[in-house]
Amino acid sequence: MTNTNNTQQLSIEDTEVTRQLAQFIVESKFDNLPSAVVKEASRAIVNCLGCAIGAAHHDTVNFAMAALSPFFGGPQAQIWGRSERADILHAALMNGISSHVLDFDDTHFRAVHPSAPVLPAIFALAEWRKFSGKDLVHAYVLGVETEIRVALSVFPEHYDRGWHITGTAGVFGAAAAAGKLLNLNVEQMTWALGIAATQSSGLREMFGTMCKSFHPGHASQGGLAAALMAEKGFTSSVRALEAKRGFGQVMSSRFDPTVITNELGVQYELSKNMYKPFACGLVVHAVIDASLQLRHQHNLKAQDISVVKATVGPLVLELTSIKQPKTGLEGKFSVYHAMAVAIIYGAAGEAQFSTEIVCNSEVDKLRSKIEVQVDPNVRKLEGYVTIVLNDGREISCHVSDALGSLAHPMSDQDLENKFRSLTENILSTSNANTLLEQCWNIAQLDDVSSLMRLTSI
Amino acid sequence: MTNTNNTQQLSIEDTEVTRQLAQFIVESKFDNLPSAVVKEASRAIVNCLGCAIGAAHHDTVNFAMAALSPFFGGPQAQIWGRSERADILHAALMNGISSHVLDFDDTHFRAVHPSAPVLPAIFALAEWRKFSGKDLVHAYVLGVETEIRVALSVFPEHYDRGWHITGTAGVFGAAAAAGKLLNLNVEQMTWALGIAATQSSGLREMFGTMCKSFHPGHASQGGLAAALMAEKGFTSSVRALEAKRGFGQVMSSRFDPTVITNELGVQYELSKNMYKPFACGLVVHAVIDASLQLRHQHNLKAQDISVVKATVGPLVLELTSIKQPKTGLEGKFSVYHAMAVAIIYGAAGEAQFSTEIVCNSEVDKLRSKIEVQVDPNVRKLEGYVTIVLNDGREISCHVSDALGSLAHPMSDQDLENKFRSLTENILSTSNANTLLEQCWNIAQLDDVSSLMRLTSI
Repeated sequence: MTNTNNTQQLSIEDTEVTRQLAQFIVESKFDNLPSAVVKEASRAIVNCLGCAIGAAHHDTVNFAMAALSPFFGGPQAQIWGRSERADILHAALMNGISSHVLDFDDTHFRAVHPSAPVLPAIFALAEWRKFSGKDLVHAYVLGVETEIRVALSVFPEHYDRGWHITGTAGVFGAAAAAGKLLNLNVEQMTWALGIAATQSSGLREMFGTMCKSFHPGHASQGGLAAALMAEKGFTSSVRALEAKRGFGQVMSSRFDPTVITNELGVQYELSKNMYKPFACGLVVHAVIDASLQLRHQHNLKAQDISVVKATVGPLVLELTSIKQPKTGLEGKFSVYHAMAVAIIYGAAGEAQFSTEIVCNSEVDKLRSKIEVQVDPNVRKLEGYVTIVLNDGREISCHVSDALGSLAHPMSDQDLENKFRSLTENILSTSNANTLLEQCWNIAQLDDVSSLMRLTSI
Repeated sequence: MTNTNNTQQLSIEDTEVTRQLAQFIVESKFDNLPSAVVKEASRAIVNCLGCAIGAAHHDTVNFAMAALSPFFGGPQAQIWGRSERADILHAALMNGISSHVLDFDDTHFRAVHPSAPVLPAIFALAEWRKFSGKDLVHAYVLGVETEIRVALSVFPEHYDRGWHITGTAGVFGAAAAAGKLLNLNVEQMTWALGIAATQSSGLREMFGTMCKSFHPGHASQGGLAAALMAEKGFTSSVRALEAKRGFGQVMSSRFDPTVITNELGVQYELSKNMYKPFACGLVVHAVIDASLQLRHQHNLKAQDISVVKATVGPLVLELTSIKQPKTGLEGKFSVYHAMAVAIIYGAAGEAQFSTEIVCNSEVDKLRSKIEVQVDPNVRKLEGYVTIVLNDGREISCHVSDALGSLAHPMSDQDLENKFRSLTENILSTSNANTLLEQCWNIAQLDDVSSLMRLTSI
């Protein structure tokens, strides 16, 4: 047994997976990307910018700005949804934070919020050095590919130990994407991945504090710095992923390097990206979806409802069992609140999880009529809702795959509506329209600065 | 057994060690510091500034400057030994790198290079916000106390797993020290330690590359940012050290919180700080010391020597067995070279490990006359040297504790000589003199900016 283990250990360290990954990134051509992946990039960009702009004036961003703006360099890049500009490293940090503050950003179907660590780094770099939309999309796809493969090589053990994988893997994604824009050679790209690896950090203990969204911001900033340093010859190990004292073996009890290289350039992880339609945890999305469908189909009014019965999977009451939430944040952890707002407002966006709406008496009344039952056979993105009306009628809806899942993705129109809802108090309608138009056509832009200017207020 | 383990796990998480540490830092008064500790701070400062200024034009620093100077903010703080200034975060990064590049900086007797992560952060902050020397020394002592106690709470398991503890623990030290200067309250100080914890990083795989000295720089920058963010209300966990998904349990297989709080304010770890007299690994210091003593006592000349016999501990030939080094760096891994230059030049400073000296024929000739024998009973900082002269005489020296060890510390004069030797090609003699004078009297300075100005060229 010992012998077998030793052999396996040696084989990990002999893989040269860092160099192979670097080589793939360096040699990739935009024209080899499947068109569906390029299309998915524009969807992810619409979603990410909407989330970031919608959170741009959140305390988390305000406090980070107050603390760090005295140290900003020249106004190289826009801080999204705000008036300020910053040097590209601080722009990456701030935009990485705002992208994740609402926990409304994208999610790969297995692990990692892909965009928040990657897009802020390369948008800032591309704005400063005037890169085209095609270059940006290409770098983005490769950054996402890198961070998700690195994440999956240690998932779930690494996450289970307590690492916030969006931060720990995100820094690799930012480095790879920025390194691609900078046209690094293979040796420089291995250094960039190494400088990223040695900054990899972020503890799950921080969940529930401002540090959670600091993680993707910090990853974005650190990955961008890694690529810029590698470009100038700053050396690191060229075996940062696979070495005995490298990322995989130090930061996880299991590391599978083959996950990083298998079918590179054949399968693109971005095609498994999901977008949240509702501003709360995924586990309640199915019953929100069902509630919205019933409201729409039956022109439901809250006052006509006698009782609402939901059947959900086991995680729902573990995570969102607050019956009488008092704050917006508590509302996000209340399946009762989530269903009530879906029925009353026909929406469960950020606005419906404000403290004002949580304290609204009509919402409170409907919440008290909702009964939730757990069925261990119901899957995570599945849910049943039956509503008994005052006139005795019963209406029901079964959602097998909630809106936003891979089986039932948000449409482009859904993503536009989400973007508009998040940004309506921040961007002018005309800027929002032009920004959306440029995002959908980003691969045709000669210079992404024009798009970035539209994120300013 | 399971039960016992559970109890122990729970008790770690119940310790509130983060809050207790924060409270100690916040409540500490300068007047409570033992005078010997204040004195040690000035010795550590002389040593750190000498190492950093001596390395200020090393490629590692040059490349980092080339990569990152386009993003510098206002000229708030000096980059030591250079003409440039930077915002305080980048100054902390660059000075943290240069402090460690030569591997000539201080070493706590058990773990961590204490000064490189801490001093750059607080010197930059103190220069910008005009703090006194007393405030700086106080913050420094507490920063060192914090990082070393955090390090020892997980040492050696954490290091053995592959973490470069100077980076991973250093970020706590920089945060604590900067937080003290900023006069944070206890809650803010716990946040600062938490924001530090979630940036804790640095892999030993990077040893032998430029990233090794990036680690203390990155720790210094990140810890400083953590304190500044906490000051503005940016929240983190208040249990970052002890929580189940916090630093101690995620980043080490063993975590002993009592090491962090036992005798806080009674025992100061800075009093166990060591300074290297010679510009190479500690394991060869004893035989260098012995060689220097023999040279001095007997007015030795290389041409009079027939053979040199050394008896050393086992690590020496594991780490420094290169018989015929070809480069300066290889010279640092050659016990033969180290002894040869000590005998020929009466010194083993940075200059004696240049490629030019390594390739010098007289040095090469003497190296070939040196025989090294391992004795497992010889301790790490112990060594025996016997020299047989051409006239048949034998002279011997036994060093039980090499110069620089706690038992045989470098004198203030030794530290001054080291400083002068490192900085002589960079600072003018008059600036070096004034700088040394201000360092020795740092606790009397009203404003450390005056000292910092002297580090500029």
